[in-house]
Amino acid sequence: MLRVGVIGYGYWGRNVVRNFNGNDNVQVVAVSDLNADNLKRAQRLYPQVRVTADFRELITAPDIDAVAVVTPVNTHYELSKIALNHGKHLFVEKPFTETSHQGEELVELAEKKGRIVMVDHTFIFTEAVRKIKYFVDEGMLGKLLYYDATRVNLGLFQQDVNVIWDLAPHDFSIMDYLIQQKPKALAAHGMDHYGRGLCNTAYVTVYYDELIAHFNFNWLSPVKIRSTYIGGQKKMIVWDDLQNDEKLKVYDKGVSVEEDEEKVFAYRINYRLGDLWIPQLAAKEALATEIEYFVQCIAQGVKPINDAAAGLKIIRLLEATDYSIKNQGKIVNL
Amino acid sequence: MLRVGVIGYGYWGRNVVRNFNGNDNVQVVAVSDLNADNLKRAQRLYPQVRVTADFRELITAPDIDAVAVVTPVNTHYELSKIALNHGKHLFVEKPFTETSHQGEELVELAEKKGRIVMVDHTFIFTEAVRKIKYFVDEGMLGKLLYYDATRVNLGLFQQDVNVIWDLAPHDFSIMDYLIQQKPKALAAHGMDHYGRGLCNTAYVTVYYDELIAHFNFNWLSPVKIRSTYIGGQKKMIVWDDLQNDEKLKVYDKGVSVEEDEEKVFAYRINYRLGDLWIPQLAAKEALATEIEYFVQCIAQGVKPINDAAAGLKIIRLLEATDYSIKNQGKIVNL
Amino acid sequence: MLRVGVIGYGYWGRNVVRNFNGNDNVQVVAVSDLNADNLKRAQRLYPQVRVTADFRELITAPDIDAVAVVTPVNTHYELSKIALNHGKHLFVEKPFTETSHQGEELVELAEKKGRIVMVDHTFIFTEAVRKIKYFVDEGMLGKLLYYDATRVNLGLFQQDVNVIWDLAPHDFSIMDYLIQQKPKALAAHGMDHYGRGLCNTAYVTVYYDELIAHFNFNWLSPVKIRSTYIGGQKKMIVWDDLQNDEKLKVYDKGVSVEEDEEKVFAYRINYRLGDLWIPQLAAKEALATEIEYFVQCIAQGVKPINDAAAGLKIIRLLEATDYSIKNQGKIVNL
Amino acid sequence: MLRVGVIGYGYWGRNVVRNFNGNDNVQVVAVSDLNADNLKRAQRLYPQVRVTADFRELITAPDIDAVAVVTPVNTHYELSKIALNHGKHLFVEKPFTETSHQGEELVELAEKKGRIVMVDHTFIFTEAVRKIKYFVDEGMLGKLLYYDATRVNLGLFQQDVNVIWDLAPHDFSIMDYLIQQKPKALAAHGMDHYGRGLCNTAYVTVYYDELIAHFNFNWLSPVKIRSTYIGGQKKMIVWDDLQNDEKLKVYDKGVSVEEDEEKVFAYRINYRLGDLWIPQLAAKEALATEIEYFVQCIAQGVKPINDAAAGLKIIRLLEATDYSIKNQGKIVNL
Repeated sequence: MLRVGVIGYGYWGRNVVRNFNGNDNVQVVAVSDLNADNLKRAQRLYPQVRVTADFRELITAPDIDAVAVVTPVNTHYELSKIALNHGKHLFVEKPFTETSHQGEELVELAEKKGRIVMVDHTFIFTEAVRKIKYFVDEGMLGKLLYYDATRVNLGLFQQDVNVIWDLAPHDFSIMDYLIQQKPKALAAHGMDHYGRGLCNTAYVTVYYDELIAHFNFNWLSPVKIRSTYIGGQKKMIVWDDLQNDEKLKVYDKGVSVEEDEEKVFAYRINYRLGDLWIPQLAAKEALATEIEYFVQCIAQGVKPINDAAAGLKIIRLLEATDYSIKNQGKIVNL
Repeated sequence: MLRVGVIGYGYWGRNVVRNFNGNDNVQVVAVSDLNADNLKRAQRLYPQVRVTADFRELITAPDIDAVAVVTPVNTHYELSKIALNHGKHLFVEKPFTETSHQGEELVELAEKKGRIVMVDHTFIFTEAVRKIKYFVDEGMLGKLLYYDATRVNLGLFQQDVNVIWDLAPHDFSIMDYLIQQKPKALAAHGMDHYGRGLCNTAYVTVYYDELIAHFNFNWLSPVKIRSTYIGGQKKMIVWDDLQNDEKLKVYDKGVSVEEDEEKVFAYRINYRLGDLWIPQLAAKEALATEIEYFVQCIAQGVKPINDAAAGLKIIRLLEATDYSIKNQGKIVNL
Repeated sequence: MLRVGVIGYGYWGRNVVRNFNGNDNVQVVAVSDLNADNLKRAQRLYPQVRVTADFRELITAPDIDAVAVVTPVNTHYELSKIALNHGKHLFVEKPFTETSHQGEELVELAEKKGRIVMVDHTFIFTEAVRKIKYFVDEGMLGKLLYYDATRVNLGLFQQDVNVIWDLAPHDFSIMDYLIQQKPKALAAHGMDHYGRGLCNTAYVTVYYDELIAHFNFNWLSPVKIRSTYIGGQKKMIVWDDLQNDEKLKVYDKGVSVEEDEEKVFAYRINYRLGDLWIPQLAAKEALATEIEYFVQCIAQGVKPINDAAAGLKIIRLLEATDYSIKNQGKIVNL
Repeated sequence: MLRVGVIGYGYWGRNVVRNFNGNDNVQVVAVSDLNADNLKRAQRLYPQVRVTADFRELITAPDIDAVAVVTPVNTHYELSKIALNHGKHLFVEKPFTETSHQGEELVELAEKKGRIVMVDHTFIFTEAVRKIKYFVDEGMLGKLLYYDATRVNLGLFQQDVNVIWDLAPHDFSIMDYLIQQKPKALAAHGMDHYGRGLCNTAYVTVYYDELIAHFNFNWLSPVKIRSTYIGGQKKMIVWDDLQNDEKLKVYDKGVSVEEDEEKVFAYRINYRLGDLWIPQLAAKEALATEIEYFVQCIAQGVKPINDAAAGLKIIRLLEATDYSIKNQGKIVNL
């Protein structure tokens, strides 16, 4: 039985507590939050759990094996450090840290302390992404050509982070998981329309060896969009996460170019226009899958795929994005 | 009665001839094309029209007032020059020319010869764009914040131009028409997956003073998308050109930020989430509207909004895009 | 403070308890269910509530003012009678009773005991239906011409009721609420493909004076549909309950016919094709609205719109539907 | 070379002429129409074709082998009779005739004269219907359970026929082609909201042995719908004819019921929820396919699937529908 303490009982913290609580191999021991109403709500729903306004009580408690940090990003580093130093395993919200320097320190500390760190890149545990990953790994898509993601909606302007740190961790972690190549360079463009010092509309291009990835992030879209297009030489995928029954579409479409031997500059373009296939996806909550995996990684002493190093990779992409935007789209080698 | 000759009877040329022929104030006198089958087809449908394989016969004919050039882009400059030098008015396909230098020459020549030049930016004559233009001009959208267009589909790789010269003239001309500001800089990213020397996937960002525009062009998308999002401070628009009945959606949504006077760094974000309104659009063919306007401009000696200078502006944007892509997304001041 | 006991803690019972519990003027005193796991679950979530496997304990408890019956339909009559006889107010699941005879008895008993009975026609408390009701009452739609509802999906075959008793109570209660006229006759067609004695596909037509209503119910549809078309002479409405942001569409479309005075048999049909308007709907849970109303009706001694008599009207329509199907679509006068 | 004359050059007549003209084995010899503008238009587009206001010239011309009758339904019988009596093959618009009596006469006459009659049930030549037919015939769908079609839109009130004679010939002919069983009975409900004596909203149920078919026809729908749901025990199909790229969806979904041997009244319902498959459809115009088939049937002396007898079957269904509506949904045995 893994004994867990959760710091932070806001919107996402509630989901984290609910899912830890729903796992048969986990006991939620304590919840802390600075907000009294949040604590009252936690107590009412989980009368058997200790609640406290002081995270220190929780983070040092000897009857807690693992700590979940579900707080604003500017507290992740400090809380994670304390937790690791007290020998706790760590489940920490994305983005991992505020800076790559902090991330590097935590990677090292986790190594030194021999503790499991999992960064909550929830999306890689969705049934859709797991299915795509399977297709990619099986070679079903052929060589990957482009990855094009749009994540936009109206508002929910964050007070402390820009649109990139808010939305990009999702897509960067999905891309990193699916593509499994080292990105070579990145460039980004954005605008801060309200003079808050935080850009609200951003476009990011990431160059891989023979693959181009692009991201559209916007807090000013009248409609919510969560779509990803993945083009392979053999098949192409459209993933629309807002669809209920047709989330994932696999197109048997492709383009190939044959060089005509007789004429040096002539090419023959071949198109393949085939059927469309929509695989059935299981209806499991991604966070539940992720938490099962967290418990299992701890039990078996195995590093998760979304460990501190994976979290750090995303922070480096976010920093590069910020740098590029501040320098009018300057290319950043990674 | 305007007497017109049309050079080029391929896919688009047929539409041009059909629409000139359908205009009561126009007489189509002659059609030329290098392809014998095309000529046969033209003759069969329009037995009263002269057909010829030699464009010179047409371009110099004394009984022709205006010439439409509906040929590949690498012939536009030469054909246009000859037509203007023979005192013909000119209707020329987009993109206007291969280089801005050619475009500048034609602007001058048209001026010198006192002839009307219209570049076929058809989309600005669609009912959808005209309606958006009306909304923008009336101030209904408020200050414009962003312009985000996607024009992707599978294939139709062009032999002679890249995806930008193929698709961007549409969106650049629409943007230019709607926004009526001077763009300040541009950056673009793209990839040529098939080693043809012609990129097939491209992303372009255009900076205006307080407005950011972005374009997604792709010949490798499994689905066709023709969508444009325009965010204003008061209202936002989604234009999906592939919809039949709901092409244009006007969202009464917006975000405003008030600075809190008491705390220097605190902001209050206000969202407005209102109704959605879908205006009824007339079902008129854009090319018919454009040709009416061409006839009218000639009759009244008025410069069209899509004159040679407008065509040249688009060529300059295309050149800047090419330059930026070749230089890994380097920003180009306009 | 209204003290409530809930009988039945299955799928819908949980929603009922959660919403009673979430109402500031209600105290949930007890929950009963025959299933031990359900009781355990209730106890864990609501440790302050009494749980019992014996509904009698609950239904006769002196510290309970109102009883919610959220059990299979074949128990509604008995449980409701006992509750009313013990002076409890009653919130009872739809369909109200198994037979109209039972319904009539309960109408009388409620009257005699002076207690409030509310039948859980949840849908009439959705924001969509309330908005449509407002439009109808304001005369915005003009004279109503037709009402056409489709409620289909794959499966969830009920063990005890056919597709009509499962799905039609929703649509019949919505129709009855919106139209406020007396239906004159009804005919229905259906099929029992699996020889269970319970039809799984059914079509119902209800005749009003100058209005025709039609319903499509099916447990064998590969896709889920929840759509209602309402045609008025001035405006028409499409309500798609599965949409998130565009649930309700109001079309400024209509048809009018003018008799041409000169020719007796000639008519002039006029079409009006105008804009489409999508009103913004509040995001309130219908069951919460309904329970507020239940509390208020009891406090003020007012009969609800969805009282026992309203529930009985729906039972009569269901019985007529069954009768018509068994008699190959025979028309039933109402 | 089949020499064809076409009577009627209205909306559909133009398509018929264009497609006959586009067929390499056909020569369009003459076109007749009562409207002078229509004739002028035909002459301009097809200068080599004789045009005439007098159909008799055409129908008796010795240089014409086959006559296409593309006129209002009340002229079909007379024109067809004359054409057959003059030894012409016949292509006649749907609905075949005004009455089944007329249809029977024409069936006999065609037989006697040894001439090919094809009724223009265009839809059975669409790629979508042909693909469905293939699936049905291959047994891919399993036993058919229901057939549910909706064909609604706003307006185009016909002057001479009601909504059933206008729209139902499409769906009845498709159903008849796909199902290949003898319908047993039919019932229909409808309303004439405008007092024209012609109903504008109608619902039709057709009973087969173990299959139920249902049709929703409406001239008063604010949106256009052309959808057909076909439920089989193994697979289910949704055909949405208004979609461009996803016209046909094949759901690997089904329901099966096993009787539990131990308990007489208990059933076990099994659901199968599998992938969705969207076959690629060729983009061929149905009318072109149909006309190829017409030419081929004449050349080989083979009776078409859509011959006079097939046309007559549809007329009988239309008559039964009218009768049932006039008698308040009375069931009509077929």
